[in-house]
Amino acid sequence: IVGIVTVDDAIDILEQEATEDMFNQAGLADVASNEADRSNVLINGNVWQIWKVRLPFLVITLIAGLLAGAVIDEFEQTLESVAAVASVIPLIMDMGGNVGTQSSTVFVRGMSLGHIDLSSFTKYFLKEIWIGLSLGLIVGIISGVAAAFWQGIPMLGVAVGISLVFAMTLAAALGFLVPFVLIKLNIDQAAGSAPIITSIKDIAGLFIYFVSVNALLGHLL
Amino acid sequence: IVGIVTVDDAIDILEQEATEDMFNQAGLADVASNEADRSNVLINGNVWQIWKVRLPFLVITLIAGLLAGAVIDEFEQTLESVAAVASVIPLIMDMGGNVGTQSSTVFVRGMSLGHIDLSSFTKYFLKEIWIGLSLGLIVGIISGVAAAFWQGIPMLGVAVGISLVFAMTLAAALGFLVPFVLIKLNIDQAAGSAPIITSIKDIAGLFIYFVSVNALLGHLL
Repeated sequence: IVGIVTVDDAIDILEQEATEDMFNQAGLADVASNEADRSNVLINGNVWQIWKVRLPFLVITLIAGLLAGAVIDEFEQTLESVAAVASVIPLIMDMGGNVGTQSSTVFVRGMSLGHIDLSSFTKYFLKEIWIGLSLGLIVGIISGVAAAFWQGIPMLGVAVGISLVFAMTLAAALGFLVPFVLIKLNIDQAAGSAPIITSIKDIAGLFIYFVSVNALLGHLL
Repeated sequence: IVGIVTVDDAIDILEQEATEDMFNQAGLADVASNEADRSNVLINGNVWQIWKVRLPFLVITLIAGLLAGAVIDEFEQTLESVAAVASVIPLIMDMGGNVGTQSSTVFVRGMSLGHIDLSSFTKYFLKEIWIGLSLGLIVGIISGVAAAFWQGIPMLGVAVGISLVFAMTLAAALGFLVPFVLIKLNIDQAAGSAPIITSIKDIAGLFIYFVSVNALLGHLL
């Protein structure tokens, strides 16, 4: 029998390959192990451990919420004249928030799965801005018509449409840009992206909305 | 040599084991392949394919935003009397949103990693309600004091505190309950959880806020 291979030889080779596989996957195993540790603390940890992880992000949200409130505060006179203007605030905030979450999820998942090559970031970023603009135009027109009929103020609908196009395009762009920048700075994007995107899109979205309202509904104020 | 094993025998056994492993992991492989397909469509797909996936969730957001706006609309008189009341709306919405996202992320990750056993769901659910309540008390007191000083209306701070305790406890509970129910109903929780949680916490949170404002600031209205 030429070239006989013993079971021991075969097992040696298989063990060697198994070790190489483990070595190659070490990076991934580290990430998985960190995630498992984090998950375990937040589920089985005591209340102090859980507060330590969750409270800092809520404090960031507090600051962002107060800043977005300051924008509303600036336009107090507008609200006192036409209270209907306030009823569209949740729509502006939620729509930007949802598009931003969609975009950051698409970016992070696409990067993890190798569908996005970070060295051609600009290409994907420009496509996402175009997607955000197109979604903003569709949803902005539908929402604007809905708001105009709901409140019986046509120009309020126009202001809603303008601010949604702006807020949704901005949120889509931030959904790609913020995690990209955090990764480049070596900061945990999973924890940091949402509070940053929320702050910027709320403050900018509400500002554009009130400026549009003041410009278009000036005769009612 | 007693009990000799040929290489062919060894390879047969190894192939059999490999097949069993693949069979066991088939569920996981399917999920991974579905995720890769979804990611690829949203990154490399054309604008029609992307609209088809992303627009339906934005339409749900539109309906939720209009319903939350209807709550504000109900209290139009309150806003016309004290416009400062509107400046805290972003804080109530963002804080509930952030806690809800934290809770649903903790639940889904914990379940995927085997830290949460669905048959003892009540145990984890009750702990999460307690965590949400404790976070609500801490953040509610800080935010209430901040709002009271900011607007110079102490009772506005009390209303903010009460509604944040309520909204954050509710959002934490929904963050565990909504994905759990969707999984039991065999509906994709990754896509469906956020719009449902957002709608309920915004509408309930704003309602409690305006009821508190009317009860506590009645003398200013």
